Amino acid sequence: MNQDAVFQTMVRDLSFVLYDVLDIGALCKTPKFSGTQRDDFDDMIEAAVRLAAEVFAPCAAELDEKEPRMEGERVVLPASLREALRLYVEGGYQGSFLPEEEGGLGLPYVVAQAMSAAFFAANPSAAAYPMLTAAAVNMLRLFGSEEQKARYLAPMIEGRFFGTMVLSEPDVGSSLADLRTRAIPQADGTYHIVGNKMWISGGEHDLSENIVHMVLARLDGAPAGVKGISLFLVPKRHVQEDGSFGENNGVTLVGLNHKMGYRGTVNTALAFGEERPAVGTLIGEPHQGMKYMFHMMNEARTGVGLGATMIGYAGYRVSLDYAKDRIQGRHPDVRDPSTPPVRIIEHADVRRMLLTQKVYVEGGLGLGMYCARLIDMLGLAEDAAERERVDDLLQILTPIAKAWPSVYGLQANELAMQILGGAGYTRDWPVERYYRDNRLNPIHEGTNGIQGLDLLGRKVTMHQGRAFRRLLETIQSAIAQHRGNVEMTEICDALEKALGLVLETTTTLAGAAMQGEVRLFLANATEYLHMLGHVVVAWMWLEQAAAALRGLETSTESFLEGKIQAARFFTRYELPHIERQAKLLMQLDDTTLSMREEGF
Amino acid sequence: MNQDAVFQTMVRDLSFVLYDVLDIGALCKTPKFSGTQRDDFDDMIEAAVRLAAEVFAPCAAELDEKEPRMEGERVVLPASLREALRLYVEGGYQGSFLPEEEGGLGLPYVVAQAMSAAFFAANPSAAAYPMLTAAAVNMLRLFGSEEQKARYLAPMIEGRFFGTMVLSEPDVGSSLADLRTRAIPQADGTYHIVGNKMWISGGEHDLSENIVHMVLARLDGAPAGVKGISLFLVPKRHVQEDGSFGENNGVTLVGLNHKMGYRGTVNTALAFGEERPAVGTLIGEPHQGMKYMFHMMNEARTGVGLGATMIGYAGYRVSLDYAKDRIQGRHPDVRDPSTPPVRIIEHADVRRMLLTQKVYVEGGLGLGMYCARLIDMLGLAEDAAERERVDDLLQILTPIAKAWPSVYGLQANELAMQILGGAGYTRDWPVERYYRDNRLNPIHEGTNGIQGLDLLGRKVTMHQGRAFRRLLETIQSAIAQHRGNVEMTEICDALEKALGLVLETTTTLAGAAMQGEVRLFLANATEYLHMLGHVVVAWMWLEQAAAALRGLETSTESFLEGKIQAARFFTRYELPHIERQAKLLMQLDDTTLSMREEGF
Repeated sequence: MNQDAVFQTMVRDLSFVLYDVLDIGALCKTPKFSGTQRDDFDDMIEAAVRLAAEVFAPCAAELDEKEPRMEGERVVLPASLREALRLYVEGGYQGSFLPEEEGGLGLPYVVAQAMSAAFFAANPSAAAYPMLTAAAVNMLRLFGSEEQKARYLAPMIEGRFFGTMVLSEPDVGSSLADLRTRAIPQADGTYHIVGNKMWISGGEHDLSENIVHMVLARLDGAPAGVKGISLFLVPKRHVQEDGSFGENNGVTLVGLNHKMGYRGTVNTALAFGEERPAVGTLIGEPHQGMKYMFHMMNEARTGVGLGATMIGYAGYRVSLDYAKDRIQGRHPDVRDPSTPPVRIIEHADVRRMLLTQKVYVEGGLGLGMYCARLIDMLGLAEDAAERERVDDLLQILTPIAKAWPSVYGLQANELAMQILGGAGYTRDWPVERYYRDNRLNPIHEGTNGIQGLDLLGRKVTMHQGRAFRRLLETIQSAIAQHRGNVEMTEICDALEKALGLVLETTTTLAGAAMQGEVRLFLANATEYLHMLGHVVVAWMWLEQAAAALRGLETSTESFLEGKIQAARFFTRYELPHIERQAKLLMQLDDTTLSMREEGF
Repeated sequence: MNQDAVFQTMVRDLSFVLYDVLDIGALCKTPKFSGTQRDDFDDMIEAAVRLAAEVFAPCAAELDEKEPRMEGERVVLPASLREALRLYVEGGYQGSFLPEEEGGLGLPYVVAQAMSAAFFAANPSAAAYPMLTAAAVNMLRLFGSEEQKARYLAPMIEGRFFGTMVLSEPDVGSSLADLRTRAIPQADGTYHIVGNKMWISGGEHDLSENIVHMVLARLDGAPAGVKGISLFLVPKRHVQEDGSFGENNGVTLVGLNHKMGYRGTVNTALAFGEERPAVGTLIGEPHQGMKYMFHMMNEARTGVGLGATMIGYAGYRVSLDYAKDRIQGRHPDVRDPSTPPVRIIEHADVRRMLLTQKVYVEGGLGLGMYCARLIDMLGLAEDAAERERVDDLLQILTPIAKAWPSVYGLQANELAMQILGGAGYTRDWPVERYYRDNRLNPIHEGTNGIQGLDLLGRKVTMHQGRAFRRLLETIQSAIAQHRGNVEMTEICDALEKALGLVLETTTTLAGAAMQGEVRLFLANATEYLHMLGHVVVAWMWLEQAAAALRGLETSTESFLEGKIQAARFFTRYELPHIERQAKLLMQLDDTTLSMREEGF
């Protein structure tokens, strides 16, 4: 239902961000992507949107209703999921951004993410399986041994094996430092993994021939904390040298978690080495597991943020369609009840809810694609200085790209439901499912509280604030670039003022940190993340407005006019939120810290 | 699960608001309640909390899982719901605030609402049945004929008949002016009701012997719009003069709505007069139906707000309990991973999320009880001037009391889930159900958008702003009263400044209205509601802090200290939100109105 509403402008929305704003066409001129051209990108994106609309979206409600269940050690999932994933693999999406010589399509990462965006909008819990597999593939490519790569990588890229990330334990979620799963060295160079793992998405199913678990565990005698964690590859079924399957490995399904949403992604508790040995091989060096995992985080966290944005996007489009169709009430200055009622899109408050959704989801999409292009630029950087600059931006933007869309994409879904009213609260419409699905995103891949600490406590301060300064300089130069057009004055002024506030706030906070007031420095890190997030998204809207103005020089497309109005809306309604946050942060408020526990 | 967490401090929380803040003990000295004393209130409240904890809460998960289903024309509901409602009726709660001579317990309305609060926290979808019945009882008492009262009122108060409010139609939700259900006069003075009705909570079930529908319909030739709507009493089963049942009336169950939450309250589509005549009797005068309905709205809308608050309250208590128990991570200034990890209540961000919940739900509870006491005061007013003053306050506070808790109670539930993390996203814990249940409250009994228009477009402006001025004077005098204590200075100063901003904003808006700019005046009515709502709740916190300081003169209770810290938190973290809103409103921003539809 309403798939048309979700997908009718998606190709235009993606092409606006990719070409009009980010000019990714320029990538085709780089040596790495010299074999590609814009038409290739467009064809792939259109095909992905079609597959998302025609196959992924139609089974999303079924995946939600028929939640995964256990039959013995088996997990039962709807056949429609298997078929959707089969077509995904067949379309070559699994390795789309890998070089052709590795079985990929050789596309830029940003194009791959644009395609992922379509699948997230259509069916996030189906899309999670290939996304997790891609994350495992990326890790293995970078850090796996030749033997590991030879045995597992090709089948993963071909979509015959799926991958997982196995981090959490029953008592260890946000604090991986405390994980206890053991890895016991064997004479043959392998390891026996022993321990219980929790919250493992895609941990058991028969959607693929095999499952390749990437497992964090601790070698005996390893240092305490995160510096003593190693990473292991543990297959569900052993793979022989010739690629044929051996016996099952010792990974047992203990139970399923029953979630509020995102139900199509089976979420498991697994026991390693309980009934029989769970044999794994070490990835990279001992005790470096967290480094490898964190290397992946930029992509995984950006992916979570993009998913949150796109669930929000789907809700925006459905509620927009509904608002154009649904007739209810009259304008407040029309008192004659015999005049015909109007479509609800005419009501100011419905327009406010639509514009709010629009700025959240299209701003979030801009940020997601910007980060994806940074990942491409990292691979293209021609010297160490450029590489450092891009990496700095990526590092500091990552917690924002994860947490900001997960908060505001969810708020967008809340507004979509409000526009549909009672109908939106029923399962006759998809918006209640979007709302339930999206609620996961502030929690997984590091809760948003963790992201706030990462941003302020690590990324802002690292290299004496170098990444922070680079972000501000990048935004500042965007303002300078766009100031020329008088239509941009309001937005440029507001963003410039906001940058000043961010700098002042950050300086005050850094002062507290320098004086050793670490708890006070970080007490309101979440507020800081929201503040810097709003400034970054205001910058995304600055770029989108500027691109729209360029477009309007030769076009009268309403879509472009809408972008400018949306940028104004963000400037007037949203950006001013940071004043409250800045004031609170600069006061180094300790109200939360000084609250006595007994007073709650 | 976790019922203990929800109820362990509920009696103290209620007694603080009722006695320490609102001094409802004084009601016992009034002629109307001269037969009551505080002990009676306490006994009733404690019994209600016990019934809520021991019977209502334990079946809430079951009502959610086994959602109502149709078997032919029957609705199947879990037996536990019937048993809970039987004990509710047996306890005398259905008519607790009615005079003893009418079969009630003669308690003040505010005490009845305190008891309702307990049931809402325990199981909102079970509590809805008696709440709807109470609303119908109140209407019938005021406006029903002697014959209607004789035949229906006593069985409703006894809990043998349940009541419903039948307003919406498939195309008519927020805009009742357009409703089309017809009422056709019959020779015997009755009416045949013909039409389809939608979103009728409790519209069909066999939890009671009979269902008494209060139905809005239009007499042929009635004026257009809301001035041509009449109200009819339409029983499910006819009742003979001797009280015995006649045949079934022509009310047919057409279907059930399948909701995201609040599932235990069956929500129906009904057809009137489809298969056989649906015979009803007119309540009051023709064309006065909306007046009668609106007379009820103060109570019904306050009830929705209280429900939202209490679902938020339940989440707060569960997440507080979890935060005291769950061990995870270390303080940010502790780098040694061999030190033991701490309970998450020690983390600043968790404390922020707990304090935010606390100020939302305890502030909302204060507002709900304040409004309930106003309803008592309306009945006790000794002269027309006092009655007018109380009615003014009630009128202007009602849209706030409905909408504010429905927004912030829901936000509280979102934070509760965030504190529980992945666990909170599963159905192993009740917080995901709270979150789903509470999402209804911004929608029903008039969407929050409608409440914003009601507040700014009707209540603020009525009688040349008299109610608005009275509200500001009431808050101003509270500030003056509490200024003496130096501990109150910060809160008093902040609230005084906020009042100035509200006045300035409202004056600017009223200026636009006077110039006929009605659409601009109301364009951001929802923002206005949030602004005035935050100011009203800041006033509730002012009163709670003052009461706590009084208490601390003779006590060292941590509970009281927590109240003062929470009031500070609201002042520092929440109240400053109004600055952004005031600025936006004073600019008479037209961004939403000037957005072209094609630009979305």
